[in-house]
Amino acid sequence: MIIAGLSGANGLDLKLSQLLNAELLRVESKTFPDGETYIRFYGGVSGETIVIIQTLYPHQDRKLFELLLSVDTAKDLGCKEVITVIPYLAYSRQDRRFLDGEPISVKTVLKLLRAVGVDHLITVDVHKVESLRFFHGNTVNLDPTPLFAEVLRNEVKAPIVIAPDQGALSKARELAYLLHDSEYVAFKKYRDRVTGKVVHELLEVDFSGRDVVIVDDIISTGTTIANIASYVRDRDASKTYVVCSHALFVGDALTKVRMSGVSKIYALNTVKASEDVEVVDITPLILEAVRSLTRS
Amino acid sequence: MIIAGLSGANGLDLKLSQLLNAELLRVESKTFPDGETYIRFYGGVSGETIVIIQTLYPHQDRKLFELLLSVDTAKDLGCKEVITVIPYLAYSRQDRRFLDGEPISVKTVLKLLRAVGVDHLITVDVHKVESLRFFHGNTVNLDPTPLFAEVLRNEVKAPIVIAPDQGALSKARELAYLLHDSEYVAFKKYRDRVTGKVVHELLEVDFSGRDVVIVDDIISTGTTIANIASYVRDRDASKTYVVCSHALFVGDALTKVRMSGVSKIYALNTVKASEDVEVVDITPLILEAVRSLTRS
Repeated sequence: MIIAGLSGANGLDLKLSQLLNAELLRVESKTFPDGETYIRFYGGVSGETIVIIQTLYPHQDRKLFELLLSVDTAKDLGCKEVITVIPYLAYSRQDRRFLDGEPISVKTVLKLLRAVGVDHLITVDVHKVESLRFFHGNTVNLDPTPLFAEVLRNEVKAPIVIAPDQGALSKARELAYLLHDSEYVAFKKYRDRVTGKVVHELLEVDFSGRDVVIVDDIISTGTTIANIASYVRDRDASKTYVVCSHALFVGDALTKVRMSGVSKIYALNTVKASEDVEVVDITPLILEAVRSLTRS
Repeated sequence: MIIAGLSGANGLDLKLSQLLNAELLRVESKTFPDGETYIRFYGGVSGETIVIIQTLYPHQDRKLFELLLSVDTAKDLGCKEVITVIPYLAYSRQDRRFLDGEPISVKTVLKLLRAVGVDHLITVDVHKVESLRFFHGNTVNLDPTPLFAEVLRNEVKAPIVIAPDQGALSKARELAYLLHDSEYVAFKKYRDRVTGKVVHELLEVDFSGRDVVIVDDIISTGTTIANIASYVRDRDASKTYVVCSHALFVGDALTKVRMSGVSKIYALNTVKASEDVEVVDITPLILEAVRSLTRS
């Protein structure tokens, strides 16, 4: 087995190769003066299983094309099979046609990955797991909730776990269960059919003196999280924690979240972490997934 | 027939729809705050032949993904067939493995276009026409040389037409022939096997008092063209013209070319033209290609 990390490997390639005692292939990745993406493998892959690691943020389209180019090249060079590890799968939120004439972007991404020859796809906490049906090959979706529960367990006391919308409810339920069977609630969120805008409906719960854990899969602009954090602060919650898999933190998102009274933010290393965020390492789960795929 | 222009349509969509008297579909194209590309068709395409126009420069990977997303969506929405017009096909210069472990990027691009359902591909003066074999569908490669000959014919007197390398020789030969059967020569250019760098070997021709036309398919950094223009200026050439299909002009390329003593630059509108370049409109050739594809 060979491990290859692209420009968005985020150090996971080195960790995996050490833990698996597998060869780490050197890959050159650069951009030409005119903006074209270029990669080069320094070493043979013929007859091998290659694990290619690439997250898809930031610069989603560039990182995706780099990955497609690499997989196509690995197949051309005669590798036996390609396992791609995509810690953060971009476009996963555009998983259906919310409005007429829209694309199902995650379907397109998964179709392209299959077209160049990806055999197995490993990803982490994809926005909706049903989206993975668009990939006509083997998929593994890693659930980081136990990792988050482990770090939170000694820190929070009888928290209320909040899902920002119904989509995150099962995640909140699982986390609450792992935190000594705590309480959990979901905000209501829906997309206005006409304008396409997201609307939040708040709920009435007694947060007074309680620790709060807000859990979500992706934080992008941070507005949702900041609104909820302000809401519970206004209702005299004790400490507020945020737990998220993919902390994109676009623009001033981190400041926005901090200003809303959040004590601590836990996020995975599926994208490059902002400073001031507690990083929870996803490597153990990826390691287990790669092992089980290559054992069979 | 429906015409749809994406963010890189460069005005060709409007022109084509008028000339073909075909519906121009409104397409929204934007980038989300986190960097994800989004498109939306405002209008039905079911049962129709749709012509989607998108050049692939600048921001090659973003423009490519936008195109792939659009074609996949058009097919999902039930269109009968997709004709894509890609005036400038990015990645066409990486058409073979120059060095071990490199990708054949143009193959990957063409494979992806086919995977989402492109039926017919129309492009302009692709770097090497053999590359189009990687697309397993119908392809049309438009030759702009007659258009250039038309604008040059009354401007240059008995010119020497220069190809910067052997790859551009047939283009120089054709242009020279159309310019009253003028003289043509090629510089020698090769890629060093070890370093991968491009080396030029200059030739000995009497340029004194002669008009010179340098012809190439793509101008990127402009270094090659500037070197040749300086070379012929030092040998007392009269006026120097540059003719190129795709004027990318990266960074200070235009200044570099101007400083080397070039009088006039002619370029197609396959990419957004820099100021100070004489634009030769490719629309008539695209029109003809679309007509012949839809007649059959």
